[in-house]
Amino acid sequence: MSQKYTELARLLAPVEGGMARMREVLAAQMTENSPAVRDMTDHVGRFQGKQLRAALVLLAGEATKNTTDEHPTVAAIVEMIHLATLVHDDILDGAEVRRRVACVNQRWDNQTAVLLGDFLYARAFALSTVLSSRLCSRLLAETTRKICVGEIEQSASRYDFDMSEDRYEWIAGAKTANLYAAACELGARYPGGSRESEELGVLMHAFGWEVGLAFQIVDDCLDLTSTDEELGKSAGTDAEDGKVTLPVLYTYRRGDERLRAKIRDVYTLPGLDDRARRLREECSIGEGVAYATRRAEELVARALARVRTLDESPAREALERLGTFVLARRF
Amino acid sequence: MSQKYTELARLLAPVEGGMARMREVLAAQMTENSPAVRDMTDHVGRFQGKQLRAALVLLAGEATKNTTDEHPTVAAIVEMIHLATLVHDDILDGAEVRRRVACVNQRWDNQTAVLLGDFLYARAFALSTVLSSRLCSRLLAETTRKICVGEIEQSASRYDFDMSEDRYEWIAGAKTANLYAAACELGARYPGGSRESEELGVLMHAFGWEVGLAFQIVDDCLDLTSTDEELGKSAGTDAEDGKVTLPVLYTYRRGDERLRAKIRDVYTLPGLDDRARRLREECSIGEGVAYATRRAEELVARALARVRTLDESPAREALERLGTFVLARRF
Repeated sequence: MSQKYTELARLLAPVEGGMARMREVLAAQMTENSPAVRDMTDHVGRFQGKQLRAALVLLAGEATKNTTDEHPTVAAIVEMIHLATLVHDDILDGAEVRRRVACVNQRWDNQTAVLLGDFLYARAFALSTVLSSRLCSRLLAETTRKICVGEIEQSASRYDFDMSEDRYEWIAGAKTANLYAAACELGARYPGGSRESEELGVLMHAFGWEVGLAFQIVDDCLDLTSTDEELGKSAGTDAEDGKVTLPVLYTYRRGDERLRAKIRDVYTLPGLDDRARRLREECSIGEGVAYATRRAEELVARALARVRTLDESPAREALERLGTFVLARRF
Repeated sequence: MSQKYTELARLLAPVEGGMARMREVLAAQMTENSPAVRDMTDHVGRFQGKQLRAALVLLAGEATKNTTDEHPTVAAIVEMIHLATLVHDDILDGAEVRRRVACVNQRWDNQTAVLLGDFLYARAFALSTVLSSRLCSRLLAETTRKICVGEIEQSASRYDFDMSEDRYEWIAGAKTANLYAAACELGARYPGGSRESEELGVLMHAFGWEVGLAFQIVDDCLDLTSTDEELGKSAGTDAEDGKVTLPVLYTYRRGDERLRAKIRDVYTLPGLDDRARRLREECSIGEGVAYATRRAEELVARALARVRTLDESPAREALERLGTFVLARRF
């Protein structure tokens, strides 16, 4: 674990000071004059992973020469919204509770997860309302709404093997790329007001969208190909949850009826163990993974071309390396 | 059902126009260019009950001569936050899912409820960020945080029969009275700025707090004494959920060890049916209910004394009658 994070920390060197300040703000927001809340927020530490979204706020600010004293706070708010979505992602249905009961006991109980996620959202929005500009509140409330819509649409599309790739990308974009885009836009544009910052906001929004979408596609591939240990979280959950991701969609579309029936079985037969391994070993998912990886590379290449229109700087270089990191990461 | 609501509608006559506008705003916020989201928000209709909190924004505005064009929007935002909390209250734990499986199937599945509640929160905050004043965003984000803290503390105090009455009131206040207080404060104070409106905000905040706390105490009594049909929602859930409410706390504190053991058994023995009926019939809960009712009356009397310092007006009269309605209601 620590070696992976060392590499990332080196990459984030140009915004080291801002990241340290961001973590202070985050820690202060987690304290609450309630023992029960403190018990919970203490556990949130385990979610504090790569903090990529916070880093993007700061790097986008530096790379566009737009850094303000409030950027670390904006970064912390973005990170809190991300944490809230992670906590709520852990909430399971009745069916899943039964299916994964051991797992649930190791994680949160549902009510705890709902309340903790709500608390993090509320903290994030409350903090955004005391910033000097309303831009952060506005953009992040809209972004949160779009994330919810994406998640709801994803939930409505479970087990839909005939989903178009456009729809897959729309959903992945809505639920994941939106927050990357907002992070980059806020970095480049906050507190707003000048025409130049509006334009840089649009450029960095597009960069964030493409990197975020690539991140989600890579995530979907890793869920199929990684182990729990490599990933630092449960692998193979997408097939369990009925999420039909890009590598599967591609394989399904290209497959004959026999392969298609097999894929549907692996997703849907009750009580099947290790569905991801079965997709790898029994459903020739490899080409689908290769196809999805190429799509992620394409998106990152487009994002890098955008960021290269900015003046050269350590922050710009870090943004480029971050794009590459998103592709190469194994966690 | 309809007769109860007719009485309430008559009471709200002084803000009829504002309530109609509030409902338009609410309906517009529920539409979303996503079929899956529309499917969900269509169902939210069933939650649109008394809309007391929205009414309080408008009545407090009128009674303090502070009504603006934005008051119906502020009222809709308050109502959306209330709806979000209701939707999230429907989320059950693994244990409860198993215990109440029939019930869950009639309600939401957990993931749906989480996403819909998040969507409503995000919509509410997004709408608040486009109002002319930031006061609404600030006050409601803080209020939402406090509601979460209250809910988390309540969850941590389940099956605590030795809870003090102060702590019970702190929790009931945090989770319920806070939003009543914020609704009244916003009505009297929004958009903020003048010293007079600050003072009226403080007065109406206190009024809302007392009425809201009384509302929660009455709610806790009704949960023990009503049927599902009268209540329009499941009665007797507090004992199921381990929530030790004021009538129970009083009865427990005054009871001998035999009665205490009986109350603990009714709350905790696995597989027991109809715990509320058992509390009524086997645990002499009647005096506790009478005690809690007196406390609610005391709070409302205090609230009414506050509001009577305002100039006489139909809105002020409606606020007084609303206080009485909170006590007399059977739903």
